[in-house]
Amino acid sequence: MALINRLDTRSADFRQRLDRLLAYEASEDASIDRAVADILLDVRNRGDAAVLDYTRRFDRVDAAGIEALEIPLADCAAARDALPAAQRAALEAAAERVRAYHERQRAQTWTYTEADGTVLGQQVTPLDRVGLYVPGGKAAYPSSLLMNALPAKVAGVAEVVMVTPTPGGVRNPLVLAAAAIAGVDRAIAIGGAQAVGALAYGTAYIPAVDKIVGPGNAYVAAAKRRVYGTVGIDMIAGPSEILVICDGATPPDWIAMDLFSQAEHDEMAQAILLCPDAAFLDQVEQAIARLLPTMPRADIIGASLSSRGALIQVADLFEACDIANRIAPEHLEISTDEPERWAGLIRHAGAIFMGRNTSEALGDYCAGPNHVLPTARTARFSSPLGVYDFQKRSSLIHVSDAGAQTLGRIASALAHGEGLPAHARSAEYRLKP
Amino acid sequence: MALINRLDTRSADFRQRLDRLLAYEASEDASIDRAVADILLDVRNRGDAAVLDYTRRFDRVDAAGIEALEIPLADCAAARDALPAAQRAALEAAAERVRAYHERQRAQTWTYTEADGTVLGQQVTPLDRVGLYVPGGKAAYPSSLLMNALPAKVAGVAEVVMVTPTPGGVRNPLVLAAAAIAGVDRAIAIGGAQAVGALAYGTAYIPAVDKIVGPGNAYVAAAKRRVYGTVGIDMIAGPSEILVICDGATPPDWIAMDLFSQAEHDEMAQAILLCPDAAFLDQVEQAIARLLPTMPRADIIGASLSSRGALIQVADLFEACDIANRIAPEHLEISTDEPERWAGLIRHAGAIFMGRNTSEALGDYCAGPNHVLPTARTARFSSPLGVYDFQKRSSLIHVSDAGAQTLGRIASALAHGEGLPAHARSAEYRLKP
Repeated sequence: MALINRLDTRSADFRQRLDRLLAYEASEDASIDRAVADILLDVRNRGDAAVLDYTRRFDRVDAAGIEALEIPLADCAAARDALPAAQRAALEAAAERVRAYHERQRAQTWTYTEADGTVLGQQVTPLDRVGLYVPGGKAAYPSSLLMNALPAKVAGVAEVVMVTPTPGGVRNPLVLAAAAIAGVDRAIAIGGAQAVGALAYGTAYIPAVDKIVGPGNAYVAAAKRRVYGTVGIDMIAGPSEILVICDGATPPDWIAMDLFSQAEHDEMAQAILLCPDAAFLDQVEQAIARLLPTMPRADIIGASLSSRGALIQVADLFEACDIANRIAPEHLEISTDEPERWAGLIRHAGAIFMGRNTSEALGDYCAGPNHVLPTARTARFSSPLGVYDFQKRSSLIHVSDAGAQTLGRIASALAHGEGLPAHARSAEYRLKP
Repeated sequence: MALINRLDTRSADFRQRLDRLLAYEASEDASIDRAVADILLDVRNRGDAAVLDYTRRFDRVDAAGIEALEIPLADCAAARDALPAAQRAALEAAAERVRAYHERQRAQTWTYTEADGTVLGQQVTPLDRVGLYVPGGKAAYPSSLLMNALPAKVAGVAEVVMVTPTPGGVRNPLVLAAAAIAGVDRAIAIGGAQAVGALAYGTAYIPAVDKIVGPGNAYVAAAKRRVYGTVGIDMIAGPSEILVICDGATPPDWIAMDLFSQAEHDEMAQAILLCPDAAFLDQVEQAIARLLPTMPRADIIGASLSSRGALIQVADLFEACDIANRIAPEHLEISTDEPERWAGLIRHAGAIFMGRNTSEALGDYCAGPNHVLPTARTARFSSPLGVYDFQKRSSLIHVSDAGAQTLGRIASALAHGEGLPAHARSAEYRLKP
């Protein structure tokens, strides 16, 4: 198998090969879904007792009562204080930058008054309470906790309740430290579908939330899908993706490493480079061959690049932007001169990293924007996680006496047209004779 | 059975009775879901041929080819021109007001530059193409077409593709007229799960869209749920709801008719009044008894009020606001003096209608705000349909030379902490020695 796929837009079968490369269907496992349905029903019926049972079974934590699974905030603060100074400073600096960026996303209530005194507007309010799922074990990323919790806090959510499984009772100190830095309000050592159910329906001990966010395994994803409607949920993320557009003047090693930084997440991750310069593509391929053996996660990177990665020769940077819009990537690096010029041609991307300095890794951790981004072409219709996901709007309508006369006549005419006479009459009651 | 339920917050069983009244579970019919899955798969595999077959079978329209199901825009314009003058004027006035309100929702791209020259921001772009489902038959509401299409057009969506079933080949002239007024770009006479599938996957003739919005029957709802992820969808709406808070000084007939205007939609619709004045609740009950027999849709209204409606006596308007927040109603009327004061206490509601003049019917048709609103308590975490549903955001990051030095060190520290060495190295490559 080749190290990485090579494509050329001039080939007759280019479209077909690209489509095959991009194809990704979230597999929904029926047996997982059935198991999750049973767990959710049980949590709904038996509450804390069910949560305790599943925690005993799946996490091997035998708690005397549900209260014993509460992680005191003091423990989180202690974990933060115990961090090596450099790591604490890095986490706090990242949190500060993420907070500052997200503060610019906060929407405000607005109203306006029409000539006849009628007032219209939109009231913006935060969600009351949000559940934050944080995976246990290897996939426990403190940066991900910051990216999910901070927008909620900036939105003004009064209570962010974190749940995180602690297999064998082992608590991850980095996660606890990040919870303290993000200002999480409660932390409970439960996970899996049982934690999602407890947050969605509420139990005697665990409060029902209004929305559940955060990554998780297939069980957590299935549970979130099932409780959607009872609570809000964030996107169910697919494998991570990077698309790099390069003019051929960035050091090939940099580009190779940027592709690696996505590929190292997961064998299903996708890393693609678009460049008009065939010689540069060769150089990047050589850099990949040279650097890959030096990487600790070489197996994952190699599998990702050979199955789903590609170096694609394009006619020019205009064509590169067209293809980027077709792919609608989660992460788009524009490693060229005047990157703003090309960014202006991009209609669909989760995040756009401009210039040769802006490696995607900077955005993952600390540039400020969120790293929870739409995957699998959903950037065509969705956005990065943001403060707007933790605020909602209520329309405001205060019709004046005069307004009731003009609007009442319009509403009455339309309501009669739609065969809804009570609508018509309730408007007509407000008409002055 | 009583005309309408009476509750009192001082009763010991109030909470329990209220919860029972509010209980609503969207029933998901497994046989409908299976049928829909088959139709979607068939449309995906056979494209236009499958769409034609289902249209023949379900709508009894035997088209020679898929092109014959295109509704020319000229036909829509002709339907508009053929409207009675008063009805056309009412529809156009409503459209103009809805457009003006929604223009205030349009988000703009923003950026800011940090001290070291790093640029951060958010690029806002419209969706490329949106599918708009418009039901056929009795539930074809031109006002609903305006409310779904106009926010998309205001957002800048280049192509709004309407689909609408035409059982027996009968096209609804009001729907066609509304399509012309809203500026729909294409109209195709197909419906059901086959139309949803065609829009989601695309066929040789029907272009794939990025998002599908608009109401529909159980088959349409199941199809939308299934294609979610391939395309965006709007909310799946539950039965309509109104909650009225009244101080007892609005004419009881007005309040009764406002409750009717929600109840006439559907036997499962919910109409509730909160008032501290027991005598006023009696007057409203008498008005209901007197007015109900005069209503053309008395059967539906009666069924809705007796099963899901309620007159609730509260201690005061503060308690009324607490209960409103618990109910998180789709429509909330505050029929009191100084309604803004009480609206400020409301955290969860789809739309807030303030003052004795502002009957909910005005908002349904022509006040300006959208009438597609969150139902079934989802106002706790979601918003009215708006321009924001047809725009999406891409994060913008352009790190300066100096920024790459500070951010690179932070990212490197955090990436090593998370065991992601390619992330760390791609940041470190940008560090100057």
